Amino acid sequence: MVNIRDIGEQGLLIKLQQFCPSEIVGDDAAILAMTPGKSLVVTTDILVDGVHFSDRTTSPFDVGWRAAAANLSDLAAMGASPLGITVGLSLPGELAVSWVEQLYQGLTSCLQPYHTPIVGGDITRSPTITIAITACGEISPHQVIQRATALPGDAIVVTGVHGASRAGLELLLHPEIGQNLPPSARDYLIKAHQRPQPRLDVLPILQEIWGFSPCHLAGMDSSDGLADAVLQICRCSRVGAKIERQLLPLPPALNQLVAPEKALEWTLYGGEDFELVLCLPIEKAQPLIQRLGDRAAMIGTITKETEVWLIDCSGTYRDQKLTLSQGFQHY
Amino acid sequence: MVNIRDIGEQGLLIKLQQFCPSEIVGDDAAILAMTPGKSLVVTTDILVDGVHFSDRTTSPFDVGWRAAAANLSDLAAMGASPLGITVGLSLPGELAVSWVEQLYQGLTSCLQPYHTPIVGGDITRSPTITIAITACGEISPHQVIQRATALPGDAIVVTGVHGASRAGLELLLHPEIGQNLPPSARDYLIKAHQRPQPRLDVLPILQEIWGFSPCHLAGMDSSDGLADAVLQICRCSRVGAKIERQLLPLPPALNQLVAPEKALEWTLYGGEDFELVLCLPIEKAQPLIQRLGDRAAMIGTITKETEVWLIDCSGTYRDQKLTLSQGFQHY
Repeated sequence: MVNIRDIGEQGLLIKLQQFCPSEIVGDDAAILAMTPGKSLVVTTDILVDGVHFSDRTTSPFDVGWRAAAANLSDLAAMGASPLGITVGLSLPGELAVSWVEQLYQGLTSCLQPYHTPIVGGDITRSPTITIAITACGEISPHQVIQRATALPGDAIVVTGVHGASRAGLELLLHPEIGQNLPPSARDYLIKAHQRPQPRLDVLPILQEIWGFSPCHLAGMDSSDGLADAVLQICRCSRVGAKIERQLLPLPPALNQLVAPEKALEWTLYGGEDFELVLCLPIEKAQPLIQRLGDRAAMIGTITKETEVWLIDCSGTYRDQKLTLSQGFQHY
Repeated sequence: MVNIRDIGEQGLLIKLQQFCPSEIVGDDAAILAMTPGKSLVVTTDILVDGVHFSDRTTSPFDVGWRAAAANLSDLAAMGASPLGITVGLSLPGELAVSWVEQLYQGLTSCLQPYHTPIVGGDITRSPTITIAITACGEISPHQVIQRATALPGDAIVVTGVHGASRAGLELLLHPEIGQNLPPSARDYLIKAHQRPQPRLDVLPILQEIWGFSPCHLAGMDSSDGLADAVLQICRCSRVGAKIERQLLPLPPALNQLVAPEKALEWTLYGGEDFELVLCLPIEKAQPLIQRLGDRAAMIGTITKETEVWLIDCSGTYRDQKLTLSQGFQHY
C-alpha cells in the first residue's frame, strides 16, 4: 500500500489535480465566471473522521459523495446553482493514497450531473482526517430562498421522504436487523444514507411555477432533521407551525423495520435526508407537489403562534410540542 | 474556565455570530453581491494545531490573524479584492470558549482594514483543532495575476523583505537567542511572524501604473518561501530566472542574528512572509518599486532557459541552482 508520506504533499497534489479542470487550478486561487446580475452564494461544511463518518459504515467514495451532496444541498436550499467547490484536506501521513483518490472519485461523481468542478483546495498533515468543503453558487436576487420569510398560512412542503438515511445507517451499523425487509427496500434505505441526492432538480420547477414574478418562498434543507428545519424556519420567521403526523412521508419499508414511535423519531430527528423544506402559498404548493411526484408532500401549515406542534388528525396520538433540544447536537 | 462542551454547538454559534454581519449569516449559505463585470476568485487554506501553529509560539488571536492574512494574501496574489471569508472549525469539546473568541478577534482584526466580513462557517467536534478558511474575492478579468504568464526579460520584483517571519519564529521558539538585538528589531521580527500583512495595498498601485490597459503581470505570494514562489512561477510559465544574491531584501537585523548562510536560507526558504513576487516589464517595475518604498526590490530577471539560478555579481559566492525539493514540505 502506498501511503501519503511515501509520495509527499506535491505527489498527492499532482494525483488530485487530475480531478480538477486544469485551466482553473494551479494558482493561489481559482477564478470563476459569474452570470451577469447574479449574486454569489457561499457555504461551508466540515466532516471529521469518527464524528461524521467511519470506515464501519462509509467507504471513502461515499464520504466524498456525501460531502459534495451536503454542500450542494445547502446551495439548493438557498435557491442557488453551483459554480464550484474547494476541498481542504487534513490527512495523516500513513493514510493510503488510494483512500484519497476514492474520496475524490466520490466527490466528482456526485458533482458531475451538475457540471460542478473542484476548483481548488489545500492539503495538510493532521492526526485526524478532516474534510472541509466550501461550495460557491450563484443566484438571481429575486429567487432567493431564506429561512426568515415564512408567513402564517403558508403550506409546508417537503420534497421527499424523511427517516430513510437514519434507517440506512442503522442497517449498516447492525446488519443483523431488518432481515425481514425485501432486498430492494434494504438497498433503498442504505443508498439513502450513502448516496443522498441534493435537490437541485427542485429549482427549475420552482422557477416554472413562479415564472418571472419574485418568489415568496421560505425554506432550508433537512440535513439536520425535518423537525430542526421546521423549527429553524419558524424561529427565524417569528412564526409557528402545525405538522400533521399522518402527512409525514415515511420511506415505504420503515414501518416494517421499527415500531411506529421509532419510525416517527427517525423521520423527525434522523437527519441527513437532504430534502428541502419549503414554506409557500398553498396555491403554489399544489402544483409543486404534483410536479415533484408522490414522495413530495404538504405536511402542515405555518401559524401565527410561535410554537411548533405535531398534531394527529386521526385522534390516536396526543398533540406534541417540538423543540430544538430534542434534535441532534455534535457536542 | 467555560469550555465548548459546557455551552454546546448552538451556544458557541451564538457567541461567534456576533463577529458576523447579521444580515448575511443564519441561512444555509451566505449571499454576497458582486460588482458587475467582475469574476469570482476563491481560495482555501487549512491550519492544524501542532502543524501550523502551537501554543508555544502563537496565541489564538494570532492564529486567527495569520489564517485571515494567508487567505487575503492569496487573493492579493491573484490581483483580487476580498468579498468575505468562511470559517470552518473542528474543535475538541474541552477547548476553552475564550480560545475560540480570541481566534475570531484575531480573524476580524486582520480583516477589518479591508472591510471583509466573516460570512459563515461550520463548527464540529474533533480531537484536533483544525481551522479551514475559504476566502472569496472579485477581480476584473483584465487585471488577473497568474503564475503562468511570466516572459523572458521580465523583472522579478518582491514587495518587501524576506526571512523576517522565519527569524521571528526562531526568537519565539528560543527566547535565549538574539539578546544582542535592539528590542525594536526583536519586536519587528516577532511581529512579522505573528501579524503578517496581506499585500492588498499593492493592487491599487498596480492599477495606477497600468491605467486602463490590460496588465502584463505574472506572480504569486511568497507564503511558501521566496525560492518556492520564483520556482513555481518559472515552472508554470516554462521559463527560468536569475536571482541576484546582493539584491535580496533582508530584514535589517537578520545579519546580526545569524550567519550569512543561515540568513540567506531563511530569506529564500523561510516562508510565511506573505509578500508578492511579481514578474513584469522593467519599465513598469521601476515605478512600482518607487511607489512601494525602500523594502520593495527588483531581485532578478526571467530567462528563457528553464533553470533558476542564484548568482552573485560580487563574485564572492559560486552560482547556485535552486530547486523545489529544498523547500518546505508538510509530509
